[in-house]
Amino acid sequence: MSSGHIVKSFDEELEGVRNTIVEMGGLAESQLEAAVRSLSERNTELALKTIEADKAVDELEHKVDNMAIRLLALRSPVADDLRLVISALKIASLLERVADYATNISKRVIALNLAPSIAPISSIPRMGEMVRRMIDDTLTAYSTGDADLALDVWTRDQEVDQLYNSMFRELLTFMMEDPRSITSCTHLIFMAKNIERIGDHMTNIAEIIIYQVSGEMPKDPRPKGDKTSMTMIEPKDS
Amino acid sequence: MSSGHIVKSFDEELEGVRNTIVEMGGLAESQLEAAVRSLSERNTELALKTIEADKAVDELEHKVDNMAIRLLALRSPVADDLRLVISALKIASLLERVADYATNISKRVIALNLAPSIAPISSIPRMGEMVRRMIDDTLTAYSTGDADLALDVWTRDQEVDQLYNSMFRELLTFMMEDPRSITSCTHLIFMAKNIERIGDHMTNIAEIIIYQVSGEMPKDPRPKGDKTSMTMIEPKDS
Repeated sequence: MSSGHIVKSFDEELEGVRNTIVEMGGLAESQLEAAVRSLSERNTELALKTIEADKAVDELEHKVDNMAIRLLALRSPVADDLRLVISALKIASLLERVADYATNISKRVIALNLAPSIAPISSIPRMGEMVRRMIDDTLTAYSTGDADLALDVWTRDQEVDQLYNSMFRELLTFMMEDPRSITSCTHLIFMAKNIERIGDHMTNIAEIIIYQVSGEMPKDPRPKGDKTSMTMIEPKDS
Repeated sequence: MSSGHIVKSFDEELEGVRNTIVEMGGLAESQLEAAVRSLSERNTELALKTIEADKAVDELEHKVDNMAIRLLALRSPVADDLRLVISALKIASLLERVADYATNISKRVIALNLAPSIAPISSIPRMGEMVRRMIDDTLTAYSTGDADLALDVWTRDQEVDQLYNSMFRELLTFMMEDPRSITSCTHLIFMAKNIERIGDHMTNIAEIIIYQVSGEMPKDPRPKGDKTSMTMIEPKDS
């Protein structure tokens, strides 16, 4: 066995880790899209299928973990290669949680479909599409090593947070005006929060990509746009 | 430099990683305790201090990451040692999120304190104490390698989920009866959800400990007790 062969096989193993991450991200992206579509369509069957699909993402995370441990044990990577393996472990764990959020949205769709549609699904599909595109661009940035695209994703998270802030206010106001909508609106707020968290996870992955490519973190402080934890809305008649 | 010295120093480095994890966990535990206490006491100053304390946890996570990368690069650990390093990376990332949840609770306390106290803080202190003890026992299980204690933590998460389920229903009902409490109750539901998520993270860490000590995962399927995603509550008068 020539040393050239060993080097090639090492590169192939690293490439295998990268491809599995992209595959995981692609599944997570589809799950978000399907979860939001199951809301717009009031489609319980699609929501159930989306929950079922979570297992495949969990399995891919285990696969990444095992590939990374094998690489660390047998290849003792250093410098950039070591960073790539550690990054893959972190990114896999973030993508696994993205799929969990999509699962949680799907469960709430099933609950909402048990009652007549009274609450506005509001800007959830728009927010879902913004974040789905963030996942897509993050995966492109990861597989092509494009730090500019990763920085673009990182910046865009603020728009998602702004949309979440206005949805949060809108849904609280709606609940006050029509208390029959309280349970449904609470589920919608949690769904919006889940999507907002997926956006946050994309900024985390974007930071990992930027650091991996440029060796530096984004210079500006991380834009934190979710102000809802501090939001109080007074009922109009009080 | 004798090889004995190198071996000792390697063990010392592993011990350093373990100690940093325990230190991180101790801080996260204090933050949860302080966040919940700031709610019971309506203490905005304590809530602000708790938010500020999050930085120290973030710094400890970076410290664990750097120690782990250094160990992997310079020591090329294999087998149990490699698993210990990978576990430390995963546990540090989970503990960092526990501190984030405590920060989020504290932000909501500040928001609640802007309005008169109308919503019941309900079972949050009880739930907070249950989960604080889970963190404490998880850290003991980690530092002593006690798989039985870790399994005990893992099992107890179901009680937290049950308490969260009943709080979720109670707060929705309260909102329906007194729409003026809608914003406050929504923050309380999110706080309870944050605490429930901390419990989930402890079961994740418990699984890592059990796997590290016994080489096996818990045999029963993971108890999933949070049923609120599927909960619908009808207003009494409808």
